[in-house]
Amino acid sequence: MTDTRGQPRYRIAVDAMGGDYAPGEIVQGAVEAALRGDVKVLLVGEQEALKGMVPVPALPTLEVIFSQGVITEAEHPVEALRHKPRASIAVAAGLVKVGKADGYVTMGSTGAAMAAGMVALGTLKGVDRPALGGPFLGLAPKTTVIDLGTSVDCRPSQLLNYGVLGSVFSKVFLGIENPRVALLSVGAEEGKGNRQVRETYPLFQKSGLNFIGNVEGMDVPLGKADVVVCDGFVGNVLMKFAEGLGLAVVQYLKARVSREGPEVASELLRELTNLTNLVEHRGGGPLLGLNGVAVVGHGRSRAPSVTAAIDMACMALERGLVDMMRRELTQVQQRVQV
Amino acid sequence: MTDTRGQPRYRIAVDAMGGDYAPGEIVQGAVEAALRGDVKVLLVGEQEALKGMVPVPALPTLEVIFSQGVITEAEHPVEALRHKPRASIAVAAGLVKVGKADGYVTMGSTGAAMAAGMVALGTLKGVDRPALGGPFLGLAPKTTVIDLGTSVDCRPSQLLNYGVLGSVFSKVFLGIENPRVALLSVGAEEGKGNRQVRETYPLFQKSGLNFIGNVEGMDVPLGKADVVVCDGFVGNVLMKFAEGLGLAVVQYLKARVSREGPEVASELLRELTNLTNLVEHRGGGPLLGLNGVAVVGHGRSRAPSVTAAIDMACMALERGLVDMMRRELTQVQQRVQV
Repeated sequence: MTDTRGQPRYRIAVDAMGGDYAPGEIVQGAVEAALRGDVKVLLVGEQEALKGMVPVPALPTLEVIFSQGVITEAEHPVEALRHKPRASIAVAAGLVKVGKADGYVTMGSTGAAMAAGMVALGTLKGVDRPALGGPFLGLAPKTTVIDLGTSVDCRPSQLLNYGVLGSVFSKVFLGIENPRVALLSVGAEEGKGNRQVRETYPLFQKSGLNFIGNVEGMDVPLGKADVVVCDGFVGNVLMKFAEGLGLAVVQYLKARVSREGPEVASELLRELTNLTNLVEHRGGGPLLGLNGVAVVGHGRSRAPSVTAAIDMACMALERGLVDMMRRELTQVQQRVQV
Repeated sequence: MTDTRGQPRYRIAVDAMGGDYAPGEIVQGAVEAALRGDVKVLLVGEQEALKGMVPVPALPTLEVIFSQGVITEAEHPVEALRHKPRASIAVAAGLVKVGKADGYVTMGSTGAAMAAGMVALGTLKGVDRPALGGPFLGLAPKTTVIDLGTSVDCRPSQLLNYGVLGSVFSKVFLGIENPRVALLSVGAEEGKGNRQVRETYPLFQKSGLNFIGNVEGMDVPLGKADVVVCDGFVGNVLMKFAEGLGLAVVQYLKARVSREGPEVASELLRELTNLTNLVEHRGGGPLLGLNGVAVVGHGRSRAPSVTAAIDMACMALERGLVDMMRRELTQVQQRVQV
């Protein structure tokens, strides 16, 4: 059953209890990754819930670690962690803290993943809260938007740091050598925008990043920048708006097709959903700015997305994501303070 | 040539110099409205620019008024108004102030239209700056989003007032009896959102509006609320993002069609643009919260959109938009203060 193409290079803790299809699809995705033999999966979940799910005989690349309690989307992450210190996400992050795992992956609550990561690993210097960033449109698959919702009410220095994190993400995961970084605003000219953007603009000018100025909403799907920096409130609204827009277009076209016959290729409908929603089709995204590797996937992830999230964590480790972020943050912070 | 179906009920000042296709398309749209005979158009523009454009013999429903100077998008509106007090937009707004016109229409700079309106007419009690609001998605043609970009960094009381203005807009222009009003946020639950939204929430709860709580970005195209209230920064980014997304989808599908032959109905491509961008196909929108009627259209408006904008100004007058807004603002402000 086992594939021994390689020795496991990395040990990834997987939160088996988080996500809409937990634990079934999570376990399946984790086992899939473990079967390949190049990663060791530490599956963290409740004894009762995992019963009968893990293959027997055991895989050498799969270890099960029991937890108690699950933190849901509805709970306040910090309080929930306090009341459930043995919850699956806390145990998974804790394994990284004590050096038993190299990174962790969850399809559960982003807030809980972040809170657990901050407690266990802390953030990189200058980062108040980790960000979620990456491409979210199939139409602009190389345009990273950061932050997508972990930090609202960002201070200008925070947005600057997110620019750095986004730029490194773009290099490491998308292979863009010198990413064009832009601030999202309501006009291209300097001086356009809300107070937050207007105060952030001069910091970017001094940063040494490849800063191309402000871009407008229109420029995001048209790919005018490689990294679009915005407050998590704006990024989250935008990402979910795109998802809703894709759904609404598909609903509209479906109704039209059924009225007017099959002249419209129904394949297009499937494509359209992907064009406006990448996230469901990726493994997830790393929490950027955490002092360690953590990947958070979409709550609706099925097994293949879980496997992809584990791969993403391994890639972050292999390419030295965290070290590169630490280095570039320090450089930029020095330039801006001069 | 003249159509005498009715006596002109309203006198509308039209800024002939504002817009990408000014003065040609503006004059054409204005003449079109004047020809119908039920509105008197006061066409405001530079003598030189209008030469030979206005029909001879003159229409009884068309009067030309000369101005000097034009305020462009690139200028700071307030300063530009100071230096060009006889600019077309200033003259148009001034005609309303002195009672020679009942409302004004422009396809020029929104900032200039607003500044001129605030100087000439002032705002309704409680409104710091007028807002632009209305549906902007063909997919959700009855969902009003307010503010679309005139006011960034709104205080909570300002967002509340925009909720009132949006609700009245929805009743008057879209015929929705008891509009469902929502705050745009990053989660449906009370307490989700940035500081601005969290502080605004309790004001809406006390307002007596048909407040349904927070909606997320996804809910806008799906039409879950009739009036979606947000800061102008967010609304503007969202509206332009939708426009860009529509363009990008059409580009994508065009490339696909040319690769794979004509199986995809090319009519769909045209439709898709409309689904994501209503504004170009409407006459424009009234400046909401101004103590008088002013309609600002899209810069790219052609003649038919200019005519439609004039119609919209007449409709605002006929249905008593400004009085209804004044009344409801007072009611809500009293409820919230108790």
